[in-house]
Amino acid sequence: MNNHHYPSILLENAVNQFAKLPGIGRKTALRLVLHLLKQEKSEVGGFAQALVSLKNEIRYCAVCKNISDTEVCSICNDTARIRDIVCVVETIKDVMHIENTGQYRGLYHVLGGVISPMDGVGPADIEIESLIQRVQIGEIKEIILALNPTMEGDTTCFYLYKKLLHYPITISTIARGISIGDELQYADEVTLGRSIVHRVPFASSLQL
Amino acid sequence: MNNHHYPSILLENAVNQFAKLPGIGRKTALRLVLHLLKQEKSEVGGFAQALVSLKNEIRYCAVCKNISDTEVCSICNDTARIRDIVCVVETIKDVMHIENTGQYRGLYHVLGGVISPMDGVGPADIEIESLIQRVQIGEIKEIILALNPTMEGDTTCFYLYKKLLHYPITISTIARGISIGDELQYADEVTLGRSIVHRVPFASSLQL
Repeated sequence: MNNHHYPSILLENAVNQFAKLPGIGRKTALRLVLHLLKQEKSEVGGFAQALVSLKNEIRYCAVCKNISDTEVCSICNDTARIRDIVCVVETIKDVMHIENTGQYRGLYHVLGGVISPMDGVGPADIEIESLIQRVQIGEIKEIILALNPTMEGDTTCFYLYKKLLHYPITISTIARGISIGDELQYADEVTLGRSIVHRVPFASSLQL
Repeated sequence: MNNHHYPSILLENAVNQFAKLPGIGRKTALRLVLHLLKQEKSEVGGFAQALVSLKNEIRYCAVCKNISDTEVCSICNDTARIRDIVCVVETIKDVMHIENTGQYRGLYHVLGGVISPMDGVGPADIEIESLIQRVQIGEIKEIILALNPTMEGDTTCFYLYKKLLHYPITISTIARGISIGDELQYADEVTLGRSIVHRVPFASSLQL
């Protein structure tokens, strides 16, 4: 369909909204909208309410900046976890992916992005200062840098390394069992889990 | 990700809602939800509102049963169209697809399904009676049956043919330039348009 003759503005609006989502074309959007149209009113209402609640009520953990329903997230509140190791990741998706490996029992810190001058993202735009503050409190013994092996990820790792170098902590990075150039979120869980177990000191990874 | 450790119930609810949609898996659902989370509050509110409005305010044309914002749809209201030819289709998607060919200037009738005893859909469950009533008014000279060439589509065509046989109208069917077994909505527009221009009397299509 090149030209779109929608029989209804309401239909067209709903299609437009779905078509704004990443990876959803107009044809798929129409299919999803027509599916919803066939559902019960309460079902569609529930869908809409879940989105509004998500956006209006979601909070971020005061400590690690992960998504949370509470002031401090369930991982940071879990006393059974190893509290002096912090794994630094780019997104909450990476936290979920590492949690799914079942190989890591420490805490996290979600940067919410990486340093990317091309996209206008500097060190002050991501959660670096809050990480330094956590280190300054003095309870952290090790920081694991688990960013994606992209140019921006590597830049951010190096920036963090320089910032954290003089604190009495170990700075390590996940073992690159994952091939260079692959995205963290697409790695299989065995490889990703192993790369956390076999993490190496950050300084030695620079010499590769 | 086999096991899903969602950091938030709100997040999980939203993912669950998206994952109910056809063709959307949990991984895609999470990607869409995280995208929405990054948007403005008004943007997400607009998305939710479009869905609620769609479901609560949408109407169906009193004449042709197509989706409409008004009592009678814009096609049925269009005096420039040929008003004595009615094309019978299964879904509103088929109407949109035929409109996009630009080859058809008559009216439509949307059945909203096909007769399918296996799925418990009988003649009374789709808009057959309303079609007969339109024919009885006496303004219609030709009915074009444009259903999908499936067993259910063919059954429905044959049922309609028997019901309409004794009215003073021509009953035709779209030319099967489209290969048998292909779905109407995936046909290219040139072929689909031509199949409407070269429609043949329904009785002759039975002898193939």
